[in-house]
Amino acid sequence: MTVPAPSPLLLIPGPSPVPQPVLEALARPTESHSSEPTGRSLRRLQEGVAHAVGARPAGDPAGDLVLVLAGSGTMGLEAGIVNLVGPGEKLLVVSHGFFGARFAAAGRAIGADVVEVSCPWGEQVPAGEVERALQESGAKVMTVTHVDTATGVVSPFLEYARIARELGVVMVLDAVAGAGGMPVGMAAAGIDVVITASQKALGMPPGLAILAISQRAMERRRQLGRCGSYFLDWLNWEATMRDSQANYFATLPTNMLAAGAVAMELAEGEGWEPRFARHRRMAHAVRRGLRALGLPPLGADEVLSSTVTAVRVPETIDPAALRRAAAAEDVTIAGGIGAWSKTTIRLGHMGAVGLPELLHGMAALEGGLISLGAPVERGAGVGELM
Amino acid sequence: MTVPAPSPLLLIPGPSPVPQPVLEALARPTESHSSEPTGRSLRRLQEGVAHAVGARPAGDPAGDLVLVLAGSGTMGLEAGIVNLVGPGEKLLVVSHGFFGARFAAAGRAIGADVVEVSCPWGEQVPAGEVERALQESGAKVMTVTHVDTATGVVSPFLEYARIARELGVVMVLDAVAGAGGMPVGMAAAGIDVVITASQKALGMPPGLAILAISQRAMERRRQLGRCGSYFLDWLNWEATMRDSQANYFATLPTNMLAAGAVAMELAEGEGWEPRFARHRRMAHAVRRGLRALGLPPLGADEVLSSTVTAVRVPETIDPAALRRAAAAEDVTIAGGIGAWSKTTIRLGHMGAVGLPELLHGMAALEGGLISLGAPVERGAGVGELM
Repeated sequence: MTVPAPSPLLLIPGPSPVPQPVLEALARPTESHSSEPTGRSLRRLQEGVAHAVGARPAGDPAGDLVLVLAGSGTMGLEAGIVNLVGPGEKLLVVSHGFFGARFAAAGRAIGADVVEVSCPWGEQVPAGEVERALQESGAKVMTVTHVDTATGVVSPFLEYARIARELGVVMVLDAVAGAGGMPVGMAAAGIDVVITASQKALGMPPGLAILAISQRAMERRRQLGRCGSYFLDWLNWEATMRDSQANYFATLPTNMLAAGAVAMELAEGEGWEPRFARHRRMAHAVRRGLRALGLPPLGADEVLSSTVTAVRVPETIDPAALRRAAAAEDVTIAGGIGAWSKTTIRLGHMGAVGLPELLHGMAALEGGLISLGAPVERGAGVGELM
Repeated sequence: MTVPAPSPLLLIPGPSPVPQPVLEALARPTESHSSEPTGRSLRRLQEGVAHAVGARPAGDPAGDLVLVLAGSGTMGLEAGIVNLVGPGEKLLVVSHGFFGARFAAAGRAIGADVVEVSCPWGEQVPAGEVERALQESGAKVMTVTHVDTATGVVSPFLEYARIARELGVVMVLDAVAGAGGMPVGMAAAGIDVVITASQKALGMPPGLAILAISQRAMERRRQLGRCGSYFLDWLNWEATMRDSQANYFATLPTNMLAAGAVAMELAEGEGWEPRFARHRRMAHAVRRGLRALGLPPLGADEVLSSTVTAVRVPETIDPAALRRAAAAEDVTIAGGIGAWSKTTIRLGHMGAVGLPELLHGMAALEGGLISLGAPVERGAGVGELM
């Protein structure tokens, strides 16, 4: 038995570093999917996610259903639309980055008539354009990305939600890159479906897609008739998600649920509001530090998220070389996506990431820039964190 | 911190008991989905599964692609058909139990024109009926269940595969309940798609759907045009599954992959053929023991699997009470499914289960039967195991 090499610090936009108690819960002996401990873990996870996104609690007569599936965030996006839009029906996709375009691709796969309203990466789609697109298309379902993981830019999703309510449109929000680190306010804003995943600001390993579903969305699912997916059909899961001991649909990812329950205990020990505030502070500190290193964030300050930051790398520096230099200091930094892959790098600062991790990451970037010949002074970035 | 209660022995048809080294790998710090360690784990898992099901190795010019997704076996079934059958196209479902019917339900969800050929639970569909149904329906894709988890009965899938080859039909095999504990012989039999999941005879925790896909099936996927699912589209995953470090599609369940790689190390330390032989011996021993306790397996000996056994409980005994009695001895036994729920119980004997676990389980059943007034002698079942 060889001792495994130490794992690098993950400062990428997911997976985020997983706290040790969560890993220990993951490694507990596997339980039956219909056991009492699995039922308890599922309920704890559902409850925590409901708090994190501001869903109506399960006990409430108007309560939202939190659906937890083995899968990934992308599967969650598909589960969010295939229950609401039938073949040939209109779906308005509001796209301000890579993951908006993904909603459009998933919509076309399920046979929807996709209408896209988009903007250049790094910007927001104005609410007026969304309103006009809804009126012109007559779409009854729309998708919105909360934080685009490629750019770190947030959308004005609360404004969109107000318009959706006024026009009687069902709004599906991809909060994969924000939920758990930033408020969503699902019930207060009247958002119908909030999608997230385990491996970002919620602080679990990757492997779960999670959806909070309003009763209005569930009613639209019932009116749809046939859902184009069997595994993703909310109606197939509904009874299991309300009582997994009494109702079987498919085998639950029991170890992941045990880990998820502990992740929620940790997050609620901190408290969601303090957690959101910590993420805001971290984001501001990271951006101050990055600017001091000559790595300006892309997008105006007021549109940037608390969880992910994309920065432009100076023309004289190869982003891949900078990431390799950070990796040599045991810090994993993400590259840019798509059109931004040659000019940007991305930092995730979410979940369990705190000041020690940010100091480690900033020091690695500083050292990397200096080694690559950038005119950076030792301590310039790190000093801004404190 | 309270000490968690000891976990019961899982003698259910999945999840099966997970060996400690696999749990330890699961709890290693989470790695990036595009990291070298994750790539290595994925390749090791793919290689092990290819060996387990007798797929053509990845290096072979005619090699099969092993696809590993966060998900469940049911998701695997859907992934197996949605890439091959378009809306309105015929799908022949050969159903000899609960999970055949599930293929039919998934087929209808994706809009296929499902033609079902079935038999009473506990029996096999004769190969002649399958041949006739293929000829009459003209279906170009058929699904077959290897071991039905509800009954423990195997299908004559090698005979079906011969017919499929002769008629140019693409055959999709649900080997969720058998792969890793019984031979499949995918390449030798010319089976196009073999579906399995992590939590049964492969000995990992639940949370992964796994498909081995032949080049012929992949070619049919290409001819299909639009696949009705985005997340399950093989073409979206192909590059990532060949090189996860270079190609991103969606975030991989990295901790589960690390665990899966260790599960394959353990299985190949034992060797697949010895492992299959061990499962055969266990199944025979379990059935001798159960018969000695007055719990006859349902189905003739020659159609019973090496991994799951369903037995009829005497009319004087309540199956739920017998399972509760076993649970009091820390052994989890499964109930019957569907029509069999009031009269049967089910035992899983797969993956890491060996003689010590079978002795524990048989002793618990013996004690339970005696406590419920059955005319059983102490040692009657346990004695048959040795």
